[in-house]
Amino acid sequence: MPEINGVEVEDTYCEAFEGIYTRILITAKYEWLLKKAAYGATSLPSTVFGESEGGVETFVSPEETPDGRLGAILQIWVAKTKKFHDILMREFGKRVRQGVLVVPTTRVFDASVESSVNKFDSNVNVGRCGDDYQWFEERWGREMIIVPIMFGEFAIERYIGYSEGVAGGNVWIFCESDDSAIEAGEVAVKALRRIEGIVTSFDICSAGSKVETKYPEIGPTTNHWYCPLLREKIPDSKVPEGVRSIPEIVINGINLESVERAIYVCMKVASKVDGVVKFSAGNFGGKLGKYRIYLNDVIKKFNY
Amino acid sequence: MPEINGVEVEDTYCEAFEGIYTRILITAKYEWLLKKAAYGATSLPSTVFGESEGGVETFVSPEETPDGRLGAILQIWVAKTKKFHDILMREFGKRVRQGVLVVPTTRVFDASVESSVNKFDSNVNVGRCGDDYQWFEERWGREMIIVPIMFGEFAIERYIGYSEGVAGGNVWIFCESDDSAIEAGEVAVKALRRIEGIVTSFDICSAGSKVETKYPEIGPTTNHWYCPLLREKIPDSKVPEGVRSIPEIVINGINLESVERAIYVCMKVASKVDGVVKFSAGNFGGKLGKYRIYLNDVIKKFNY
Amino acid sequence: MPEINGVEVEDTYCEAFEGIYTRILITAKYEWLLKKAAYGATSLPSTVFGESEGGVETFVSPEETPDGRLGAILQIWVAKTKKFHDILMREFGKRVRQGVLVVPTTRVFDASVESSVNKFDSNVNVGRCGDDYQWFEERWGREMIIVPIMFGEFAIERYIGYSEGVAGGNVWIFCESDDSAIEAGEVAVKALRRIEGIVTSFDICSAGSKVETKYPEIGPTTNHWYCPLLREKIPDSKVPEGVRSIPEIVINGINLESVERAIYVCMKVASKVDGVVKFSAGNFGGKLGKYRIYLNDVIKKFNY
Amino acid sequence: MPEINGVEVEDTYCEAFEGIYTRILITAKYEWLLKKAAYGATSLPSTVFGESEGGVETFVSPEETPDGRLGAILQIWVAKTKKFHDILMREFGKRVRQGVLVVPTTRVFDASVESSVNKFDSNVNVGRCGDDYQWFEERWGREMIIVPIMFGEFAIERYIGYSEGVAGGNVWIFCESDDSAIEAGEVAVKALRRIEGIVTSFDICSAGSKVETKYPEIGPTTNHWYCPLLREKIPDSKVPEGVRSIPEIVINGINLESVERAIYVCMKVASKVDGVVKFSAGNFGGKLGKYRIYLNDVIKKFNY
Repeated sequence: MPEINGVEVEDTYCEAFEGIYTRILITAKYEWLLKKAAYGATSLPSTVFGESEGGVETFVSPEETPDGRLGAILQIWVAKTKKFHDILMREFGKRVRQGVLVVPTTRVFDASVESSVNKFDSNVNVGRCGDDYQWFEERWGREMIIVPIMFGEFAIERYIGYSEGVAGGNVWIFCESDDSAIEAGEVAVKALRRIEGIVTSFDICSAGSKVETKYPEIGPTTNHWYCPLLREKIPDSKVPEGVRSIPEIVINGINLESVERAIYVCMKVASKVDGVVKFSAGNFGGKLGKYRIYLNDVIKKFNY
Repeated sequence: MPEINGVEVEDTYCEAFEGIYTRILITAKYEWLLKKAAYGATSLPSTVFGESEGGVETFVSPEETPDGRLGAILQIWVAKTKKFHDILMREFGKRVRQGVLVVPTTRVFDASVESSVNKFDSNVNVGRCGDDYQWFEERWGREMIIVPIMFGEFAIERYIGYSEGVAGGNVWIFCESDDSAIEAGEVAVKALRRIEGIVTSFDICSAGSKVETKYPEIGPTTNHWYCPLLREKIPDSKVPEGVRSIPEIVINGINLESVERAIYVCMKVASKVDGVVKFSAGNFGGKLGKYRIYLNDVIKKFNY
Repeated sequence: MPEINGVEVEDTYCEAFEGIYTRILITAKYEWLLKKAAYGATSLPSTVFGESEGGVETFVSPEETPDGRLGAILQIWVAKTKKFHDILMREFGKRVRQGVLVVPTTRVFDASVESSVNKFDSNVNVGRCGDDYQWFEERWGREMIIVPIMFGEFAIERYIGYSEGVAGGNVWIFCESDDSAIEAGEVAVKALRRIEGIVTSFDICSAGSKVETKYPEIGPTTNHWYCPLLREKIPDSKVPEGVRSIPEIVINGINLESVERAIYVCMKVASKVDGVVKFSAGNFGGKLGKYRIYLNDVIKKFNY
Repeated sequence: MPEINGVEVEDTYCEAFEGIYTRILITAKYEWLLKKAAYGATSLPSTVFGESEGGVETFVSPEETPDGRLGAILQIWVAKTKKFHDILMREFGKRVRQGVLVVPTTRVFDASVESSVNKFDSNVNVGRCGDDYQWFEERWGREMIIVPIMFGEFAIERYIGYSEGVAGGNVWIFCESDDSAIEAGEVAVKALRRIEGIVTSFDICSAGSKVETKYPEIGPTTNHWYCPLLREKIPDSKVPEGVRSIPEIVINGINLESVERAIYVCMKVASKVDGVVKFSAGNFGGKLGKYRIYLNDVIKKFNY
């Protein structure tokens, strides 16, 4: 039976999807303002509402930012639908304007990783909130938009890259108690904070969902087959005996390799937590997503 | 000339609006999970996008919560438009499901303050994400919905009150530098955290806006008359000489009295910060909002 | 059998001691600097080393501080020995100079609560680090010492009160797991943060001790009778079956009443946590401390 | 004139000393407990009191810890005096027992970096607080002492390395305002958190000192020549015109190279902050410390 550090790994795959993301670097004068903007702008993951989700990839040293200030790398994701460009424009505008621009001293820089990336003009969805009092200026080696605001100024790089990545990668951690679930989830999320290119929009997600629902108007519903409380109440529960909690770590990454690596690290570190008894992952029979990431394949691939 | 602690107070009023709010108490097993849910669920204030805004009113002692855990009181606000009920249902559902339910161990209780409040059935926009595996149960003296989730369970009180309150109250703090603006803003926000019934959705808001705009499709734009950077560039700037930064504190409250009190406290504490030279407030000529709160009236009223 | 919310309360008392404390209010320009100073200056509780212990009583609003900034009330305690005055002078000097003065923008004010309090001249153990370049000045309605430092200035009120209080009050929380112990401990500590006049120097203390020791040179040692791991290994273990963890909450307060109230609140809130099965307290047969606080007496006294 | 990013660098050196340090890795179940222990155990830098100082070198991923939990690397330093071994034993015992052991779920591992390091037996100053109920056990590939405590257990690696390093390296940042001083200091401290082998015990130190003093009994006093407030009051002030604040970053490192690198990075990142006008460093004419680190030498050496 496949396993990692003695913990069973179900012979299954997580189904992941094509998503469109932007990767930006934000900076601020003090760490507390930076954190407020970083966490605020990436909270409320609402792709299931036809909106967007985000995450903090990592915090970076002043040595690594164009303006020499404290920085954070963020990702903002939308589903790859036909209208993704419009949705991305609206959602990027909303998250940056309502989550970053409103926080004193913040700036936004493009942090695209590929040369082939597409770019949009952030003057359209962010800069124009300067009501045409904004101007363009070369600063910190970048082409910036300077938006005069009541606090002083807000600066955003004019051209922001967007690209296709891999969204919805996930690992399910079967645990004997909610406390081991919290510990395993936190260990996994903190280890993933070190992996370049990925974000965990929900961090320790307590409410994995399924596609089927009686209420399509409110989106995905609870994955009842994997709800420990329903184990004795429904005939087709898939919760093993003794399992009381199954947190999910949802992983988006800039490419397949980064998501695979993250899935491996997630299992590797969580496997050492007392009370973790099994790993699995969510899929929809492979009908919906482009990618199938087999848990056992990533174990073989990254087992260093 | 009207003043508070020697700081000039402009003879003007802030224009405030009728808004619809819910007031809830959330609890969690540990403080870090509580804070993640509280700040996450209330971030991204987006009423200008036709959505909602929220804030953390205060954190409460385990002695004051129905389930004896650590708690936080949150408010979620929507504009009082004709369709407010639909928008409130959608927005409450989104903020609670994507910001609270997904965080391990959280629960939601009604925290209405008035007996005459209306209530909605949270089974419709939250409970049903249990796909009808949820059930109703009396617990902690409340009628709760228990939603089985993969982590274990999520509990929310079935009937949640909503009511009309006063939104958009505000104070502008004219400062000599961005550092005095940050200090004054933080002092004000922290003092307001002690006032019952009010939230500051933007905390230290760096980007006060105006109604007029060349780009109505992206909503309110920068209030150019009050942008210090434009002082020398436009003929009709209203920025006094020496002023470099004007943070805005936006205040929503459960009634007019609480907002007035908050405006007073905001000016009182900010007036003691070096570099604060004047207070004013935002209004639209009184044509849009129902309430006019004169800064000098609140000084007379609360000058204790 | 005595109980609180259905949890057994052992018919015993905690033994508390006379201690000498100072109560000060510190302020800083920003919250992060305030917290750094507050937690830093009160960490490393080392009364058992013949030194001192401290705690953060509460954080206060800018409305409640002499200089209108964010503030925190701290207590610093020494044992009431014959040489307490010398030790208090040294320890106060160390904690304020190495924990507060070194943090940018901090100030220290006396926060004595009684009129009959004794006062010492902080110029002796703090002010003189100005090498006689410090001066005295009336500011914020207080007689302050202004110490010129490389950062700018440090200000401390000249006369600081000290008084006799009650130290070493404690509650032991018998828990079925370390997770319930953490939860119960955190709930108790956070509830006590709301009680005026008391501090919990160790917060959730994981290592309750006894007086008897084979190694007097290193001070008190583990209270082996109450170590769950030793339950099966020693003949005279006092750990009940099923108990895996016994955190201790140590409480110091400005008077007996405040400590009694804190003990009551501690049991009251912790009793609601799943896995808490019993309360007890530490004593030494009543030979060492002046005070005996019976757990059941405080339940009767405060059962509101 | 020597400069870095256009900021003047005084042609001087910092004088650094031989110090003795231990480097340990602590882990805990949750991040909030880890941070409490890490910051608590390293606070109150009191080498000037004949005691010790400490710092958090960095936080590490669960992938990098022996027990797979969240970890932090700490350093504890004492002066290299004749009695250093006794002082180190006492101080290590105090900081670990009163700062780490008392925090639930913590463990301590040796994190020596050199093979030639000396080791002491932590059973003497920590393990024996188990009153000989502690035992030795191989776990996580290390020889551990398991100390039964009321919370459950505390584990510490038996043999802890100590070694000679370089203490008291420092940079002085001449700033035009206290706000630029805070910003420059924070940027420097955060950048140094990324450099292996060094700690900044005081972080942004607001109170640089000198050796000469009228009050030897209370230790080093304010470096009056560099106090901006005294610029107009004393004849021999060395504060340049326009300088209002001079924070000091004190750097201890495992070897000379790491301290030199840290000094360089400190100047490099702080030089980009508005209001930073000059760098210098503290020395005592070279009579006291073994090392002289010339600021301009490190610029040449590391200018990558």
